[in-house]
Amino acid sequence: MIKISFNTLRETLKLKLLKYGFEESEAGLCSKILSENNLYGVASHGTNRFCSFISLIKSGHIVVKTKPVLFKSFGAWEQWDAQKGPGPLNAWTATDRAINLSKENGIGVVTLKNSNHWMRAGTYGWKAAEEGFIMIAWTNAFPMMPPWGSKQAVLGNNPITFAVPRKTGPVVLDMALSQYSYGQLSNYRRENKPLPYAGGYDLYGNLTTDAGEIYESKRTLPIGYWKGSGLAIMIDLVSTILSGGNSTLDIGMSEHDTAMSQVFIVFDPSKTNTAESINAIANSIIDSVKSSEPAEQSEIVLYPGERALNRKNEYLKSGIPVDETVWERILKL
Amino acid sequence: MIKISFNTLRETLKLKLLKYGFEESEAGLCSKILSENNLYGVASHGTNRFCSFISLIKSGHIVVKTKPVLFKSFGAWEQWDAQKGPGPLNAWTATDRAINLSKENGIGVVTLKNSNHWMRAGTYGWKAAEEGFIMIAWTNAFPMMPPWGSKQAVLGNNPITFAVPRKTGPVVLDMALSQYSYGQLSNYRRENKPLPYAGGYDLYGNLTTDAGEIYESKRTLPIGYWKGSGLAIMIDLVSTILSGGNSTLDIGMSEHDTAMSQVFIVFDPSKTNTAESINAIANSIIDSVKSSEPAEQSEIVLYPGERALNRKNEYLKSGIPVDETVWERILKL
Repeated sequence: MIKISFNTLRETLKLKLLKYGFEESEAGLCSKILSENNLYGVASHGTNRFCSFISLIKSGHIVVKTKPVLFKSFGAWEQWDAQKGPGPLNAWTATDRAINLSKENGIGVVTLKNSNHWMRAGTYGWKAAEEGFIMIAWTNAFPMMPPWGSKQAVLGNNPITFAVPRKTGPVVLDMALSQYSYGQLSNYRRENKPLPYAGGYDLYGNLTTDAGEIYESKRTLPIGYWKGSGLAIMIDLVSTILSGGNSTLDIGMSEHDTAMSQVFIVFDPSKTNTAESINAIANSIIDSVKSSEPAEQSEIVLYPGERALNRKNEYLKSGIPVDETVWERILKL
Repeated sequence: MIKISFNTLRETLKLKLLKYGFEESEAGLCSKILSENNLYGVASHGTNRFCSFISLIKSGHIVVKTKPVLFKSFGAWEQWDAQKGPGPLNAWTATDRAINLSKENGIGVVTLKNSNHWMRAGTYGWKAAEEGFIMIAWTNAFPMMPPWGSKQAVLGNNPITFAVPRKTGPVVLDMALSQYSYGQLSNYRRENKPLPYAGGYDLYGNLTTDAGEIYESKRTLPIGYWKGSGLAIMIDLVSTILSGGNSTLDIGMSEHDTAMSQVFIVFDPSKTNTAESINAIANSIIDSVKSSEPAEQSEIVLYPGERALNRKNEYLKSGIPVDETVWERILKL
């Protein structure tokens, strides 16, 4: 790992995006989003994915110059076609639009079809919460997880973000519906360490903590066994029906996780609360969690988003750790 | 277990509700909801909870004659105060109102404060889906589950329902955020059987499949460990802020799980799809799940709601199994 400052990271990615056809302002925003993914501790959706992001641009799966267009409006809910533009920019636009709809209607919903990988779900949750809004958003995804009772990976891990504003740090959940992402499995496999909890099955259908065995079987475990499996099915159904776009089944017909369907739901809590009262409610709930008695192997109880915020503060001071090989590949793009 | 026909069950419960102060039509609807909970295989939220439902009426925690009232409206989102009326009737009213709001705005949201236990989350999902709507709804709950990293039960298990219409059977997920409910733990403890998967911790902080040990430690396990814990925190935050009602912390100040906060989100998919196209999308996704290759210990892959539908069809033919002791207690009310 080498350490790189946020500004160097952002400027480097921006220059590459300009080289591959982005306009000035889009390159600025997209490089900000990707660099912040590293800053918040999610390199898998920042530098580690940057080369494949550029590959998908070269192969035409991501179309740099297109922007989402509105194609149907029903009041508080709008359907947009992202036209295979860059996923992070599409999702950013959808978040902004859902925020504006929520100002008019209390709640605002934007559905996106033909979008691309939005990278880190939390990006959009943090954005909405930092602007004072409550967000629930999710995306469907390439098939990579078997449903409960099956050995065939026909479900996406369909990441979700939930976000609530709070002055001393928004509360932001960002989670995929598999117990571990393939990025995490890959780290454990490389370091030859067992997973803390079973993360999938071996080739014979036994639960295992061996990431290598899960890579072999392609049988990752949904969170809560049958429960996460059911939730992944529902997220795919709702995303596909509401957006008019592709299901996980459709996405799997391609070789890449492109042209997916996404849902952005935003509430404007200022309709019914002052910023102070929202903050007081959030603090009271978070304080009850953080002041609860720690378990045996635990020193501190974290709230959703706390670890990301700590990483951000640490990395802003001491630099962002970036894989050296990945960094060299990026510089050569 | 004795077997009772749906009509006998419903009529019996209705007479008891009339005796405890319900009006004719409310007694009819409430007894229908509670009997259907048994019919769909969830006796824990039907007959098994009926005596404590009546106790809460006697103690004034459930106020029979009150109805939810609208107190603020922001367009597509309305805030209602359920005034501690019967939970199933409040949630039914909220579902109806959210459906009507979705017809106007594409999406409709009703938040309820001061409601009571809605019993089976799926009741409202099935209702919305059978009427052609997509629903996402949840409730916060009495503290009963420790957050990740803690041994103190400060979170609710905050049940969620997701529902999508489909001609041959709506797809309805109904799940709490603990791996097992206390009702299920109680069954395993009584039968002295191990849980299929760890469902909580023993007194020393070890994961266990012994339901008795979990009863002792009061440390149930969130689905997906840290993930379900985070989701439970978010559901409580969003419910409390949007409804203006009680958080799990507030609910825990009382001895009973009353005066909780609930959120009902409904989409009208007919705005953008014909009933046929919605059905075709739902069938394509469900078929891909059901036709995926079964795992080693599995013969069939189920979709969310399939088991409930099978139970309903079976019980309508052969009668609904009801615990004999519970039935005798109900008859004596």
